[in-house]
Amino acid sequence: MTQTDTPMNEEGVPEDFSPATWRGGFGNQVGPIYQRFSDDGTWARGFLVGERHTNGFQNCHGGMLMAFADMAFGSVVTYEKHRFWVTVRLVTDFVSSAALGEFVQGNASVTGEDGDFITVRGHIWTGGNDPAGPDGRTLMTGTGLFKMLGERPGESPLLAARG
Amino acid sequence: MTQTDTPMNEEGVPEDFSPATWRGGFGNQVGPIYQRFSDDGTWARGFLVGERHTNGFQNCHGGMLMAFADMAFGSVVTYEKHRFWVTVRLVTDFVSSAALGEFVQGNASVTGEDGDFITVRGHIWTGGNDPAGPDGRTLMTGTGLFKMLGERPGESPLLAARG
Repeated sequence: MTQTDTPMNEEGVPEDFSPATWRGGFGNQVGPIYQRFSDDGTWARGFLVGERHTNGFQNCHGGMLMAFADMAFGSVVTYEKHRFWVTVRLVTDFVSSAALGEFVQGNASVTGEDGDFITVRGHIWTGGNDPAGPDGRTLMTGTGLFKMLGERPGESPLLAARG
Repeated sequence: MTQTDTPMNEEGVPEDFSPATWRGGFGNQVGPIYQRFSDDGTWARGFLVGERHTNGFQNCHGGMLMAFADMAFGSVVTYEKHRFWVTVRLVTDFVSSAALGEFVQGNASVTGEDGDFITVRGHIWTGGNDPAGPDGRTLMTGTGLFKMLGERPGESPLLAARG
């Protein structure tokens, strides 16, 4: 059980993002992973592509994008439902690559729910908060099926940000 | 462009595995990743679940299994076709979780090929080299679509092992 030791953003991370904290070592190993909860009600997770994320082409490794997809797509359960979850199935389509130094964002929306099972549609992009903006470039699209577990303690940071 | 500094196996890694080397930082960041080329013609990649791979339940994080799926499923292109590749689509079904300290293996077989596109069926498991053996437990199944790029230099280690 470790948490991020440095609450500072790396250089190149947008100001509206802050580091997410993690139970378990993997989030820190591939992180820092950041999150934002914006005034318009949207949210995203993000990371800055560093040397430690690269493949042999000096782009972000596809494995890192997949690991991030799991975190970013599943976050909709964390934030919107305020529950723990496990991944059942992920489908990830690689559209474009992210270069070293680019800041990558990802989020998801709920598409269906049945008991403890929840399906989501996810999106990973770079070039600002609006993936449809002039600099936006989609890196990955996909879907996820998650099984929801028990309630999280405290209040969802997204619900708190929305007031 | 970095490579694994320590050619030694971590304690708990089966003797028939040796560390894989990587161009780019991500393989080292989440590794060491190991590989075996066995006398029966089979191969696998593998990793030992350490603290740096865990989620909040002290199991291997789903994101690590996804990152490993990309590496293990795509390896069939590396080894069987001796070409570089990029991932186009991956489908990953999470069947069971891997506990801290377990050694995880994964590989794939080619299911189809059209020009530079190649489809594969992948498998990730723990409990020895034979996933159908008495201790074998499937962790993930899935499929992949990859685009093959240029030829790799030198000889494929799999083809070399097969003589």
